[in-house]
Amino acid sequence: MPNNPHQSPAAVEDAFYAAFARLDLILMSAIWIDGKQAVCIHPGGGLLRGKDAVLASWRDIFGGAQPPQVDHRLIATYESDDLAVRLVEERIRPRGSASEQASRVIATNVYVRRRDAWYLAEHHASLPMVEQKATPMEERKLH
Amino acid sequence: MPNNPHQSPAAVEDAFYAAFARLDLILMSAIWIDGKQAVCIHPGGGLLRGKDAVLASWRDIFGGAQPPQVDHRLIATYESDDLAVRLVEERIRPRGSASEQASRVIATNVYVRRRDAWYLAEHHASLPMVEQKATPMEERKLH
Repeated sequence: MPNNPHQSPAAVEDAFYAAFARLDLILMSAIWIDGKQAVCIHPGGGLLRGKDAVLASWRDIFGGAQPPQVDHRLIATYESDDLAVRLVEERIRPRGSASEQASRVIATNVYVRRRDAWYLAEHHASLPMVEQKATPMEERKLH
Repeated sequence: MPNNPHQSPAAVEDAFYAAFARLDLILMSAIWIDGKQAVCIHPGGGLLRGKDAVLASWRDIFGGAQPPQVDHRLIATYESDDLAVRLVEERIRPRGSASEQASRVIATNVYVRRRDAWYLAEHHASLPMVEQKATPMEERKLH
């Protein structure tokens, strides 16, 4: 993780997943934008709006959990001077799990710039899909 | 719907939902960005990448369907000169349905500007939640 997590959207993103993997609520708080602009949708969950509600949800998730193994991979990105969208594939695996299967989650992360610092404004995650080796990514059409 | 669906992110969005409500694949094709930048995640579904894959999914959805009633409401927006993110709540109801319940879907829509025209680049929708009157929005924490 970079020394200054606010230097770029990618650095904020690295810090976000580091905070998740370490169950670090202080780092998680540092990288979200303040106030009502913060929006989080956990997999299968409803809309959480405002930094207080968002951080409360992460506190619940972190409570009593063992630090998971969290990897993320960039799929697509759209960037401008003060706004960036990064579509990522997350792989989340409970640490020490006997199973080799990881949950795979597709997430859209939105970053905004305030002066010279970048912040996470929106995290929108889809339902996890259990990873199956050597199987192409499922493409369901359920809209 | 505006005469020129490309004049602003909001106008593209209106056209997107009009295309859905009218099962209009020609309009749907007109408002998506070309090539690999197009990304669509339907509720509960996997990642569709590239305009061809995205439009094929909408063709499947439209096939044999009755035009649904589709409303959308802006929840939050992040905008810059050539990139915009709009978080919306969709309400989708089969037309002529005896039930009064609509499916409520939270979606993140990403728009990019190419010269003087805006296009839809990403549509990321969550699982529908059945609407229940006079009940606060559920806020589950399942990450």
